[in-house]
Formats: sequence, C-alpha cells, structure tokens
Amino acid sequence: MIDTLYGSISDGAIGVFDSGVGGLTCVKELIRLMPNEDIIYLGDTARVPYGTRSRATIARYARQDIAFMEKHNVKLLLVACGTVSSVMASEPIFEGTNITCYSGVIIPAADAACEATRNKKIGVIATPATIRSGCYEYEINRQRPDISVYSKACPLLVPLAENGYTAPGCQPAEFFVREYLSPLKEQGVDTLIMGCTHYPLFEDVMREFMGEGVTLISSSGVTAQQTYDALKAQKALKPASHKAKIELFCTDSVQLFKENVTRFVGGDIDCEISQCSLS
Amino acid sequence: MIDTLYGSISDGAIGVFDSGVGGLTCVKELIRLMPNEDIIYLGDTARVPYGTRSRATIARYARQDIAFMEKHNVKLLLVACGTVSSVMASEPIFEGTNITCYSGVIIPAADAACEATRNKKIGVIATPATIRSGCYEYEINRQRPDISVYSKACPLLVPLAENGYTAPGCQPAEFFVREYLSPLKEQGVDTLIMGCTHYPLFEDVMREFMGEGVTLISSSGVTAQQTYDALKAQKALKPASHKAKIELFCTDSVQLFKENVTRFVGGDIDCEISQCSLS
Repeated sequence: MIDTLYGSISDGAIGVFDSGVGGLTCVKELIRLMPNEDIIYLGDTARVPYGTRSRATIARYARQDIAFMEKHNVKLLLVACGTVSSVMASEPIFEGTNITCYSGVIIPAADAACEATRNKKIGVIATPATIRSGCYEYEINRQRPDISVYSKACPLLVPLAENGYTAPGCQPAEFFVREYLSPLKEQGVDTLIMGCTHYPLFEDVMREFMGEGVTLISSSGVTAQQTYDALKAQKALKPASHKAKIELFCTDSVQLFKENVTRFVGGDIDCEISQCSLS
Repeated sequence: MIDTLYGSISDGAIGVFDSGVGGLTCVKELIRLMPNEDIIYLGDTARVPYGTRSRATIARYARQDIAFMEKHNVKLLLVACGTVSSVMASEPIFEGTNITCYSGVIIPAADAACEATRNKKIGVIATPATIRSGCYEYEINRQRPDISVYSKACPLLVPLAENGYTAPGCQPAEFFVREYLSPLKEQGVDTLIMGCTHYPLFEDVMREFMGEGVTLISSSGVTAQQTYDALKAQKALKPASHKAKIELFCTDSVQLFKENVTRFVGGDIDCEISQCSLS
C-alpha cells in the first residue's frame, strides 16, 4: 500500500483522515517532519469510534471519508486510522475513486516491527475490528514467516484517550494497560506495535509497564516517517519558503472537536477548523 | 411528554429505541411488567454512542430512528435513550411524524426523584450531552423549585458497560463510580437519578458507594413502570392469552449486537434479531 506513494505525486496537500481525533497524532508527526506541507485532515467525529463496528460498516464509512477527500486537492492520502487501514486489504475502498496515491498504517508499522525485533516475537494492540481482521499477522508473516505475532484487542483505550485518562499514575490508564498488555508481556515480546492512532498517548504508561527492553512502534509515527521519505525521494516536498496551511474538518461540532485537538497534536497549532457533512 | 401516553392508544407493539444497547435495560423491565406485550426495539449500533455528540447531530440521528419506527405498527414509542430524551425538549424531533404517543425517560425519572427525596437534594448522572442540556434541573425545578439538583457527566460509563466492566470488585467500575459520584455524595444527595439507560448495570457498585440511605432511580425502570400504568389505565394491555413477539433491530452487525443482548436484558429472551438501515 505504501508503495503507491512512489507513484507520481502531484502538487497539493497531504490528506489525512481518521474516525475521530486519533489521526491527529499522525498530523503531529507530519508537522514535526515537514513544517512546510499543507495538510487537510478529516475526523468523522459524528460516528467515532469505528473500531468496535463491523467490517461492512467500517468500509461504508471509509468510502464516504475518501469521497470527501476526493473533493480536495490532495497529493497523497494517509488513512491515519488503524481500523480503516485493517479493512483496506479485503475491501476495495479506493476502487472507483480518483485517489491513486495513499497509504494505511498497517504496512509501515509491520515493516518497522519486523526490523526492530531481535527475538522474533512481536506484540500487537489495536481496536477489536483491527485485531479481528488479522491484518498484522498477515503482513508480518507474509514477509517474515519466522516471526510469532501475539495480538490483543483494547476496546477501552480509545474512550480513555478521548477523555484524558492517559498519563502515568492515572489509575484506569494503568489498569487497562496492565489488563491488555499482560498476556503479551508474558509471551516475552520485544517489540510492541501500537496499532491504533490513539495509542501514542499511552506511550509513557506502556513503556513503564513493558520495560526498557521492549521497542514501541507508533503506527502514526512510522507512517509519517515513510511519507516524509517518499516525498523527499520524489523531490515533492514543499519549499522552505512555503507557509503551510492546515485545515481540520470534523463531522460533529467544531467546539467539541477543538477540546481534543491540543491534546492529540501536543500543543497549539495554527489551523482552520470547520464542520463538514459526508452524506 | 409521558402524558401523551394517555392519548388514544391503538393496537400494536411497544416501540423502543436507543443509540445502542442501553435501552435494553428498559426492554428488560417492560418484559418483566408486561410479558404479553409485543416489543419492537431499535439500537443504532452503527453510530453509538450518542451521548458524546452535539445536540444537532443527536437530533438528526433521532429523526432517522423515529422514521424507522414509523414504518412499524407501534402503539406507543419509548425513547429509551437518556441523551435523545434530553434533546426532545428543545428539538421538535417528532414534528411531522405520525407517532403521537411517546415518552422519553427524563420526566418519569424526574417525577420519581421528586417523590423520593426527603432532604431536597437530588443527584443526576448522565452522558455529557444530557448534562449539558440541563434537562433534569429544568424538569425538577419546574415542579419543585425548592429542590437542589447536582449533576455530573460520566463519559466513560457507557464504554465500560458495553465491555462488561460493571460488577462490584471490578477496579475500573469502582474507580469511575468513585470519580463521578464523589462530588454528589459530598453534597449529601439522598436520591440519585441514573439518567442513562446503560447505568442500571452499575447499580450494585453505585449502591455500595453511595450507601443505604440514598435512593437510586433507574430512568429505564420508572419509564417502563409509567408505561405499564398508562396501558393498564387505558385497558390497552394485550390479553394473557397473547404470545408476545419481540423483534430487535440494530444498524451494525447482528453478531456484534447479540453479544450484548444477554448482558443488558439479564438473560436469554425469545426474540428475532435483524440488521436494518436508517438512511
């Protein structure tokens, strides 16, 4: 999927979409790596979360998200939602659209984990829909059948993140990190894929629980890095003189969305926020 | 709102709808009180939860839920969703529909709490949207301006309930009950309205935390009771010879829905479950 980024990249913004605010952790990394790029972000906050829904419903919503992005001038589209990325392999959600250059977060994260592991034991945490899809096992074992993959669905982490229960010392954050990660720790994984773009907010708690020897892979972070590498290789980066324009769209009220932007982007950013309709 | 139940009630089923599975706590009470009544239930599981969304989005979804119910032969319609009930006062969601006999859960719960309180201090817990609407303060003080109302939004209780973290001794259930109810307990309320139809699942934990002197009001329970009283008064109950037919509809997959039905209805029930589309 990421390979398509090496196709012909036109001028325009980097498009990013997610079920809600989680994909903003990817935007944060994009801004850090490429401060001159224009970014258009869509968060489907009127229907978040996706990760507890069925594959058919997720595919239907994703097609509407992509149709919205088609109306904008995007040079490439990042599916910054682990759940939507996990259905891309089996559901042709880009079929019939004019978007030819796109990436999900699964392959970048699987690639990075395969490179990081020393003991050939990789843990994956993600939403129930992503885990049910088996996409990480598939992608990792396709290139490295010698690696064992241990997966765990974490349905409560998204609502905890959206309500600010993520910091070290926060009881429910520590409870659920222990609850979900214990079986992976017991298996002795040395690499852990945070396979939902909300999860980087729990990085400190997870690092503390898993211990220093375990490498954490942020699906948002590695996808932003691969995007940067691809744009740089194609000399398709905006010049340093370009003043970046960042536009955020949400499907529910702007006011409710704003409360989460600072938390997920990790600070104030200069951007426009608007509500949009997908149907 | 409940008064409309005293209008002319035709023959047909009792219609019940909710954003997801919470309204099944109301169905449970309806079956207990009226085992011969036909029930048609709709849970909008493809878009649950409603309680963290804006009023405009909630009203839009509710109109689609009602449009679905219009196509069925319902003699009365219960809005078994605290969040939708809270927007009914300000948004004319029934306007233009053919449903004339309906009730939300706010007034039944407010009535019951006014009757129960001795020290004139009522606590209300509900979703962020319900609390923002101020509907409980409004309804309680409209009839009893001498009563003080203390409210608290509980955004995490719905996802906890939907994932089975509700029992006494369950750490996150006890953490969040303490987190949300402490300010109400400190105010010395003697009555607590569980203003979201998911909350009866936490009844034991809440009772333990608040202590024996505090009356818990289940918005599902009192609404089912008022419905029974109204049908009985109008002699509109089905005869004891009638074998009840219970139909459950959900907007996401039946399989995902089924996992929660037993938990929320409190046992196995003889029913048909189908997926439906609202748009």
